[in-house]
Amino acid sequence: MTTTAAQRIAAEFAGTGLLLAIVVGSGIMGETLAAGNAAVALLGNSIATGAGLYVLITVLGPISGAHFNPAVSLTFWRTGELTLGLLAAYVAAQVAGGIIGVWITHLMFDLPLLQASEKVRSGVPQWISECLATGVLLATIHLGLRNAAERVPLLVALIVTAGYWFTASTFFANPAVTIARAFSNTFAGIQPADVAGFIAAQLLAAAIGCALLARRGT
Amino acid sequence: MTTTAAQRIAAEFAGTGLLLAIVVGSGIMGETLAAGNAAVALLGNSIATGAGLYVLITVLGPISGAHFNPAVSLTFWRTGELTLGLLAAYVAAQVAGGIIGVWITHLMFDLPLLQASEKVRSGVPQWISECLATGVLLATIHLGLRNAAERVPLLVALIVTAGYWFTASTFFANPAVTIARAFSNTFAGIQPADVAGFIAAQLLAAAIGCALLARRGT
Amino acid sequence: MTTTAAQRIAAEFAGTGLLLAIVVGSGIMGETLAAGNAAVALLGNSIATGAGLYVLITVLGPISGAHFNPAVSLTFWRTGELTLGLLAAYVAAQVAGGIIGVWITHLMFDLPLLQASEKVRSGVPQWISECLATGVLLATIHLGLRNAAERVPLLVALIVTAGYWFTASTFFANPAVTIARAFSNTFAGIQPADVAGFIAAQLLAAAIGCALLARRGT
Amino acid sequence: MTTTAAQRIAAEFAGTGLLLAIVVGSGIMGETLAAGNAAVALLGNSIATGAGLYVLITVLGPISGAHFNPAVSLTFWRTGELTLGLLAAYVAAQVAGGIIGVWITHLMFDLPLLQASEKVRSGVPQWISECLATGVLLATIHLGLRNAAERVPLLVALIVTAGYWFTASTFFANPAVTIARAFSNTFAGIQPADVAGFIAAQLLAAAIGCALLARRGT
Repeated sequence: MTTTAAQRIAAEFAGTGLLLAIVVGSGIMGETLAAGNAAVALLGNSIATGAGLYVLITVLGPISGAHFNPAVSLTFWRTGELTLGLLAAYVAAQVAGGIIGVWITHLMFDLPLLQASEKVRSGVPQWISECLATGVLLATIHLGLRNAAERVPLLVALIVTAGYWFTASTFFANPAVTIARAFSNTFAGIQPADVAGFIAAQLLAAAIGCALLARRGT
Repeated sequence: MTTTAAQRIAAEFAGTGLLLAIVVGSGIMGETLAAGNAAVALLGNSIATGAGLYVLITVLGPISGAHFNPAVSLTFWRTGELTLGLLAAYVAAQVAGGIIGVWITHLMFDLPLLQASEKVRSGVPQWISECLATGVLLATIHLGLRNAAERVPLLVALIVTAGYWFTASTFFANPAVTIARAFSNTFAGIQPADVAGFIAAQLLAAAIGCALLARRGT
Repeated sequence: MTTTAAQRIAAEFAGTGLLLAIVVGSGIMGETLAAGNAAVALLGNSIATGAGLYVLITVLGPISGAHFNPAVSLTFWRTGELTLGLLAAYVAAQVAGGIIGVWITHLMFDLPLLQASEKVRSGVPQWISECLATGVLLATIHLGLRNAAERVPLLVALIVTAGYWFTASTFFANPAVTIARAFSNTFAGIQPADVAGFIAAQLLAAAIGCALLARRGT
Repeated sequence: MTTTAAQRIAAEFAGTGLLLAIVVGSGIMGETLAAGNAAVALLGNSIATGAGLYVLITVLGPISGAHFNPAVSLTFWRTGELTLGLLAAYVAAQVAGGIIGVWITHLMFDLPLLQASEKVRSGVPQWISECLATGVLLATIHLGLRNAAERVPLLVALIVTAGYWFTASTFFANPAVTIARAFSNTFAGIQPADVAGFIAAQLLAAAIGCALLARRGT
């Protein structure tokens, strides 16, 4: 199937939007129903995110590659699969899609549209966690593509489900998701002041990933 | 395997009946055991529904297509895979099967057979949620069939499991299921007065889906 | 791979033993840790049973067929895949394996070896539930074998996981499992007096299944 | 793909490190959030471990075999797939990787780096449990390789998820994991004094496994 650049960008926009609806929506649902047991909320949040991601990557992958993540797109620019222009368009679509996904979620749950999170997520341990999370995600994708390409949707879904539990920062691992989650003062939020630190940690991992991908040739 | 129209209709009847037994039965079990923690009940409900749907779609798909859903059947009428007569028969079988599935569930759980739900599910945010849910379901099915046909049972199962968590209306996305759930005053119910609003939202999404399918030809 | 009758019987013995260890062990673990929230215990119990069943059926299936269930073996005798002698040996191995599996579980959890359950599971609604559960299990296996043979381990695992939630009797659907669970006064138990009713309901479904299999030829 | 011994050892080091981060990290997250309901913590712990293991085995399997476990490596030395020198290197990498994985996890969660567990895990029932767990793990791997090699990552992931629930010792089944978990006084810990008993039980199962593998030839 040949896809135009416009179709690819639209797929990144819609996919990241739905991803944020899944992340933020299941967080709201979990927090509302869990009677104060945050681990039960995280169970719903992590299972829904993994299940939804598998679907989004499987159905949109053949169109755009289903990155939904500027750090991932960066590594595919490095391997030559995206031009610099398309990389810029992907990142813009991911960020815009993510924010609009959050707003649609607020609409569904009858919450104020415009919000800013007050959730503190900061400090060196959190940044180590985000750097590790992003590195694990990128390694999963690129090792997976080499050894088991048809299983990549499942691999990404499962590493994110696991990551919500085993990383102290709950595995954001995605600059577009980080920005969008700052717009929601709910379970999945991050206060705007802490966004830059998370993104810096994520981009450090992406830079290391790009360097390693360059070393072994493309 | 050649299947007769009668076999196909019987598969839609039995499949939708079992789907409702799974949705309503696991809701009753969850609510009864969860000691007031509705998120735990929703975990059981969403995991059971996804697991059961995967089985029903896999074993009945080769017979009838395993729609179990008038909105889905409508789009397959639009693509020419169902005649108008078969569409009508499918919808009738789905609605009748769903209601009988609810009654069998009440029988199993030793509850009054005839019930009407008192659960309010109404308002613009809920309708937006149902329209989005149905659109996501239809996109999953039709994009999945194009790109990864053998994974469609898994895709549908996982998007419904995720949907129970990320949509504010808990992803009914199905007029036959909506009607049948009005007959149960339990966890999964919807009061009869709110059925029309849900179905209107679902059919709006189905109409948009049919228009898009028509645009790209069949 | 050619397997001898002795290997097949040993596989049924070991498989049913491990199945009971999984069912009863995860029930004990859940009940002990769940702080009175029985739905959380059932989540652990149903996820562990589905996950373990997938493994047992996948690795032992090529040896014995991985029935672990007299009702299932009965239908394979009816289709001609088991002789009457082998059917008798399978059933004996399943019952003996199941009971020994329960005892090993008690040993692991430092509980009295010999126990009799005091859990009441009786009455017409429970029997309807067991008859339905067994019918759904047999239909899943035989329709699955016809349409998607390589997925049968997954289909059985998922219908059991779902069944723990959607049937009022929590999907015993297996005479050997029913007998063995009478020997454990823990989460998964059934009092000895109620065993006969459950088995009668299960065998009724198996008889209907055999009749349907006969009608369409083997 | 040809892999050098150094690459294989590096994969065992990194894989076991990440495995421990997943096991210990998800345990900390669960215990912190679960409001005293240890079954909810175990749900998160067991789902995260299974999901993460599937990913690690799938992406690192083609490099090193993805043992992450001295008991597993021992059986592959017995079948001739590892030389004695490589076996020693694998075990060293697994133990070192596991401990460093625990320390990185403490860093992420802002906990003291150096800890010793105070969790008692001892006694004959626990040792029976560990011996059974290790035997089940080894049987799953070696029967799986013979009958369904491409499903081994899934089989191992699911038997561990189930094992956390059905064995009284929560399925350590791995000497390197046992040693590493002694370095963390959190949910997943084991006090140093109890490590030897667990490892003895695990090696007993591995020895039986090696004897059985020898009997049927390699």
